[in-house]
Amino acid sequence: MHPHHRSWLILKHAYVRAAEIETLLDLYGTVDDIVGQPRSRLSESGLSAEKCDAIATPDEKAISMALDWLEDDRHHLIAWGQEAYPEMLSQIPGPPLALYVNGNVDALHIPALAVIGSRNPTQGGRRNAHDFSRHLAGQGFAIISGLAQGIDTAAHEGALDAGGKTIAFLGTGIDRVYPAANRQLAHAIAADGALVSEYPLGAPPERWHFPERNRLISGLSLGTLVVEAARRSGSLITARLAAEQGREVFALPGSIHNALARGCHELIRQGAKLVETASDILGELRPLAGHMRETADSSGPLEPTAAEPDDDYAELRKALSHDPASIDELEKKSGLTIDQLSSMLLILELHGEVESLSGGRYALTG
Amino acid sequence: MHPHHRSWLILKHAYVRAAEIETLLDLYGTVDDIVGQPRSRLSESGLSAEKCDAIATPDEKAISMALDWLEDDRHHLIAWGQEAYPEMLSQIPGPPLALYVNGNVDALHIPALAVIGSRNPTQGGRRNAHDFSRHLAGQGFAIISGLAQGIDTAAHEGALDAGGKTIAFLGTGIDRVYPAANRQLAHAIAADGALVSEYPLGAPPERWHFPERNRLISGLSLGTLVVEAARRSGSLITARLAAEQGREVFALPGSIHNALARGCHELIRQGAKLVETASDILGELRPLAGHMRETADSSGPLEPTAAEPDDDYAELRKALSHDPASIDELEKKSGLTIDQLSSMLLILELHGEVESLSGGRYALTG
Repeated sequence: MHPHHRSWLILKHAYVRAAEIETLLDLYGTVDDIVGQPRSRLSESGLSAEKCDAIATPDEKAISMALDWLEDDRHHLIAWGQEAYPEMLSQIPGPPLALYVNGNVDALHIPALAVIGSRNPTQGGRRNAHDFSRHLAGQGFAIISGLAQGIDTAAHEGALDAGGKTIAFLGTGIDRVYPAANRQLAHAIAADGALVSEYPLGAPPERWHFPERNRLISGLSLGTLVVEAARRSGSLITARLAAEQGREVFALPGSIHNALARGCHELIRQGAKLVETASDILGELRPLAGHMRETADSSGPLEPTAAEPDDDYAELRKALSHDPASIDELEKKSGLTIDQLSSMLLILELHGEVESLSGGRYALTG
Repeated sequence: MHPHHRSWLILKHAYVRAAEIETLLDLYGTVDDIVGQPRSRLSESGLSAEKCDAIATPDEKAISMALDWLEDDRHHLIAWGQEAYPEMLSQIPGPPLALYVNGNVDALHIPALAVIGSRNPTQGGRRNAHDFSRHLAGQGFAIISGLAQGIDTAAHEGALDAGGKTIAFLGTGIDRVYPAANRQLAHAIAADGALVSEYPLGAPPERWHFPERNRLISGLSLGTLVVEAARRSGSLITARLAAEQGREVFALPGSIHNALARGCHELIRQGAKLVETASDILGELRPLAGHMRETADSSGPLEPTAAEPDDDYAELRKALSHDPASIDELEKKSGLTIDQLSSMLLILELHGEVESLSGGRYALTG
């Protein structure tokens, strides 16, 4: 067992953030020192009572389950500040404290392109996702996606067909596969690439996980290619996150009569690069791949316009308070759908207006 | 007979430019006074010897043919400075001295959209050209195109189907129809809209006429919509002219596997507005239609990048001299195709580097 695993797991299960861990390390020394503090000393750090409680009296069953899982040589816990922690992710707003990885950790350190889109694409869209991914994986780029059906699946498969590396970020615990139909694909991905999750083992595919997970897909990638996406779909949120993270955004145009081209066209109007061939992407990514460490913090090509109308945000802000509320409660109060809420809450969280708490609860910050 | 027709026709047949006519009017009074000057006085104006000769000894046969043509009530000669001369055209670089019009002169004064594209479009492209034109003509916009087969034909027909007005600018004399297959369509256009040409009666469809004619299609229009166009096609020249004239440029995206979407995608990358619906165009044009007189001279949305590689322009400049050369001679000297030469020469002409002379000859200016 890695000496610090238990301590990182305790901190992770306490929902300690990467921003908070720096303060704690400054105060107490190592992660082992942090979790070794008495409850009274811990609270002096400014950490919330809820988090102090979770550190002082950890969920031993969950920790032990994770430690068991980590016994496998292919299973890894990558924590903030470690060499294995991807530089690209350390640069994004709201970086994960730690990641569960099943597979090849080195895959997280090669230049990557995210390929995303609709779960119900056209045949043409599916083929494009496959062909672009195959070509770019063949050129040495890792292909990152979300293991969903449709474009995600085609992207992972394209990379595998080229004998290249592909990475799937999960919206569940690392020990679960969602959707179940992609179990075989998940195995193939983990063989030379990686499955990655920031959720606890056993975590179900909660709806609010997916937009949150999307910031990792865009964040680990030099660029995000949207193949086919409807207006107001999750793919556009990922594209917007990519832009806010200073990453490139690429979109494939399509017929004006194809509803799944609408989202791509919207992105192009907002400044995403219109892509016709894999060479168009290579031309943009190759120079970036040379100095991956410098890519963050530059302003993205998309205007930070709201993906949802301002009225919707006004409704959501009215529904929120400093008392944590579940997404189901917010749904009732705001009249917005869970899908809308999930992405809007993530945007507000990245802007620092909202804090996400354990159990999918949200509260105004400050 | 309109009192000044004969004089305008003499000046037009002498290739006097709109820029020159102002000087001549200042010096001599009316157009009748200009053509009444003795050859010796005329040359004092700074007009070239060739033009002075053509005014002093006009081509009476050609003038008489044009005057006969003008006997028809539906036939018009609209000259620089007249009320019937469209304000939109007076604002462009290289405005025509006069236009031959067959049909309804009022059609030249309503807000217009140019709809252009490939002569060999896909069925989908043809249908889009038709449907957009029908919708916008139904909203009161004149649809302007070039009477060619393919997109042009679909655009004119769409406008006619809506009972709207449509205008065709010809690359031949006004008394000819090219291609001949569009004779019926030409009649239908002239019934309530207009056929327009700046070439002498009987002029054949010379290849260099078409890019030159394109500046009138874009210039009379508030915006130009490119429906389907190959890379390096004439439609892109028209779009570029539109941008240089301060007009809007719209392009329909398409599948990355449709070669005729490539030209549109190139335009979108250069800043043309990506259009999915007729409403997208209406939203842009309606505010402009309110103050048509103010639309000129603003810089266009496209970068003035060469539509042809710089190397090609270098070759062309080497082939050109101050001695007029025919386009066939330039073809031999430069190794460029007639199609390339036609559009490149027009660009250079609009930039003031090249002067076009009678008989399709070109020379360096100055």
